[in-house]
Amino acid sequence: MLSQRMSNLHPYVPGEQPKDRAYIKLNANENPYPPSPKVIDAVRKAVKKNPEKMSLYPDPDSNALKEAIADMLNKTGGVLCRSNLEGGKKNGSGALVTPGDFDKIPFVVTPDMIYAGNGSDEVLSFVFYAFFDSDRKLVLPEHTYSFYPVYGGFYDIPLNKIPLNADWTLNKEKMLEQANLSDSSIIFANPNAPTSLGLTRDEVREMIKKAPKDRVFVVDEAYVDFGGESCIPLLAEFQNLVIVRTTSKSLCGAGQRIGYLVAHKELVNAVTTVKNSLNHFPLDFVAQTAGTAACKDAGYYVKCAQDVAFERDEFIDFLREKGWNVLDSQTNFIFCRKDGVNGESAYRKIKENGILVRRFDTPGIEEYLRITVGTHEQMAALREVMQKM
Amino acid sequence: MLSQRMSNLHPYVPGEQPKDRAYIKLNANENPYPPSPKVIDAVRKAVKKNPEKMSLYPDPDSNALKEAIADMLNKTGGVLCRSNLEGGKKNGSGALVTPGDFDKIPFVVTPDMIYAGNGSDEVLSFVFYAFFDSDRKLVLPEHTYSFYPVYGGFYDIPLNKIPLNADWTLNKEKMLEQANLSDSSIIFANPNAPTSLGLTRDEVREMIKKAPKDRVFVVDEAYVDFGGESCIPLLAEFQNLVIVRTTSKSLCGAGQRIGYLVAHKELVNAVTTVKNSLNHFPLDFVAQTAGTAACKDAGYYVKCAQDVAFERDEFIDFLREKGWNVLDSQTNFIFCRKDGVNGESAYRKIKENGILVRRFDTPGIEEYLRITVGTHEQMAALREVMQKM
Repeated sequence: MLSQRMSNLHPYVPGEQPKDRAYIKLNANENPYPPSPKVIDAVRKAVKKNPEKMSLYPDPDSNALKEAIADMLNKTGGVLCRSNLEGGKKNGSGALVTPGDFDKIPFVVTPDMIYAGNGSDEVLSFVFYAFFDSDRKLVLPEHTYSFYPVYGGFYDIPLNKIPLNADWTLNKEKMLEQANLSDSSIIFANPNAPTSLGLTRDEVREMIKKAPKDRVFVVDEAYVDFGGESCIPLLAEFQNLVIVRTTSKSLCGAGQRIGYLVAHKELVNAVTTVKNSLNHFPLDFVAQTAGTAACKDAGYYVKCAQDVAFERDEFIDFLREKGWNVLDSQTNFIFCRKDGVNGESAYRKIKENGILVRRFDTPGIEEYLRITVGTHEQMAALREVMQKM
Repeated sequence: MLSQRMSNLHPYVPGEQPKDRAYIKLNANENPYPPSPKVIDAVRKAVKKNPEKMSLYPDPDSNALKEAIADMLNKTGGVLCRSNLEGGKKNGSGALVTPGDFDKIPFVVTPDMIYAGNGSDEVLSFVFYAFFDSDRKLVLPEHTYSFYPVYGGFYDIPLNKIPLNADWTLNKEKMLEQANLSDSSIIFANPNAPTSLGLTRDEVREMIKKAPKDRVFVVDEAYVDFGGESCIPLLAEFQNLVIVRTTSKSLCGAGQRIGYLVAHKELVNAVTTVKNSLNHFPLDFVAQTAGTAACKDAGYYVKCAQDVAFERDEFIDFLREKGWNVLDSQTNFIFCRKDGVNGESAYRKIKENGILVRRFDTPGIEEYLRITVGTHEQMAALREVMQKM
C-alpha cells in the first residue's frame, strides 16, 4: 500500500533517548541551560492573557519573530560569542568576545530576508525542495550533518559527497571543482558537524566567488554562535547565498522547534511558497511567542554561549593532557579519539557510567566520540569517567 | 536559482487575515472558544517547573499525546457531539448527543495506531508522500479541502477530480468506478468542506468495500466532532483505511498546530518513516503538553462543540427563514447562497460591516458563502448584517 517513493527513504537517526535510567545527555548537542526567564514569562503571560489565540490560527509568516530575529542579528553581529582563534590562541585560552567587541555586521538584515519554520530540519528540507534538482548532483562534504543525505533521498536529489582533507577540514578545491563540473549547488555546515571545525568568513567568500553563480550556495550555521564566524555579512556581496540557522542550540530552544534562514528576498519568497504548499502554519502561537522573547534577550544567551565555550575549552585541555586527539572546536561539542582506545568501547564505558555521548557507526569516524558540552557539573562527571580512559 | 519542481507549486490560499481593522473572524473555521483552562494551566506549569525541557529536543514520537488521543477516542466514541440526523430531525432541532449516550466505539484505538504531527496539513502531506503514486490518478471530489490539490502539485501526484452530485453530495459511484479503473486511492473530507455534508459510517463502509483493497483509503475527519459520524470503528474491518484528524477545530487548538491520523500500525509506521526523513521532531514540547491536556479534558470540548452546533442550527433556521438556500451542516460552518444575491457582493457587504466570512472564487461555488459558526454574540452581529440581505 506504500508509494514507490517510500523505497528512497533512509530516515535520520538522532542521538538515542534511552529511558532505562536517567542519563546525563551529552549526545544531541543541546544547550545545557534553560531558556531565559523572560521566555518563560512571555509564554506564561501569553497563554493566560490571550488564551483565545491558542484557538485561532497563528500568524502564518511569524512576522513578530522575524523582526526579532533580524534585530538580534543586527545587534550581535550575527554571532553570540566567538573564540579568539585569529589571535593564534587556541582552545583553553581563547578570549571570548561579546557583542560590540568585534566588527559590527557590515550589512543590515531586514525581516523580509528571513524565513522561519518548524526547526532548521524543516527549513533545510524546504531548501532542498526549492533549490536542488534531480538532474545534477548536490555537492557536500562526506562528513557533515547527517540529515542532508536523508533529504536527498526524500526528494530524489543525487549527492556528490567529497571526502574531507586528512586534517578534517573541507576539501574546498575539490568541492568547487565538482560543483562547477555539473553546475551544482553546494551545502555544508559551518562550523561543520561532527568535526566542530569552521571556515572563516573570508574562506567562504572565496568559495562562493568560485562556485556556480546561478546555483544556490547553502551554509548551515547551526553551531556558529559558539565560536564561528557568521557568513551573514556576505549577503552584501552574493545573491545566491542561503544561510540556515536554528534556535535549538545557542538560544536554548530545541524543545521549541524554531529554525530560520537568512537570504535575499527572492529566495526567501521561494521557500515561503514551498511552505504554503505543504503546511501553511508551521509555527504555533506559543513557539512564535517564545522565539520572539528569546531573540529579544540575546544577552542571556551570550552568557550561556560563553559558559559553554569556557567549559568546552577546559575539557579540551583536559582531554589533550590525557593524550586524546581533539579537534579545535568552534561549536558546543567536541570531536575526539585516542590511539589505542576503541570508539565503541569508549562510548559503552561512558554510557555504563550514566552519561550519553554520540558515536557514529560511519566508516572513517567510527573511532571518534562526539561529546556535547554540558554544564560544569556534567563535564566534571564526564571527566571523572574519562580520567581512567 | 529555483529547482525545476518549483514550477509545479500552486500554494494554498487560506482565509484572509486583514489587519486594516478588527474583524469578527468567521472565515477560517476556527473554534470561537478558548481552550480548556486545564490546557492553559498545563502549559504554564510545564514551562515554569521544567524550563530545561524547552532547551532539550522534545519526544519525537509524542508518546504521551498519542496515549491521550487514543484514550479520548475510546472514551468519546470518536466524536464529541452529533446531531440526531438519523432520527429525521434536521438542523434547528437536532438532539445533541453526548459521550456515553450513543453507541460505544466497537473498536479500541491503541497509541501505536496514531501518528501525531504539526497540524493535519503536515499529516496530510505525509500521507500524500507515503501512499499516493505519480503513475496513477488519486481520486477525490471536485469540491473538497482545497489543500489536497496543492499536495498533488507538490509531490507530482496526478488527480482525478469527480464532480459532486447536484445536491452537493459525493458521487460515490463515479469515485469508485474511477478508483477501480486505475487501481487508485480515494481521499475526501467527511463531513466534506466547503459543503458541510457528511456520509454516514455505513455509506463509507460500502465505499471501502468496493474500493481497491491494495490502495489506502483516506477519510479526513477534521470537522467530524460537530455532528458527523466517525469512521474510526471501521478500522476493525479494513486494513487500508487512514483517518486524518485535527485538534484545530473541535479541540480549540488551531494556534497549537496538532494534527493526527488513526490507522493500522503498518501505515502509521510508514508515515513515521516519512516524518523521520523530513523533520524528526515535528511537535514542540509545549504543543505536546497542551494537546495532551486538551485530550484529557474532552468534556470541556464536548460543551464547546454542542454550543457551536446549537448556534449553527439556530443560524441555519434564520437563514432559511430569510430565503437562503442552506445545506444541512454537520460541521462548524455553514454553506449557503440565495437566489438573486451575488456571492461576491454579499461577501463584501458583510466585510464592510466588520465580519469576515469565506467565499471561494472557484467555478461552481462562486455564489456561495462559507460561514464559520462563532459565539452567540458573533452570530448575532452577523444576523444583524444579513437581516437586510
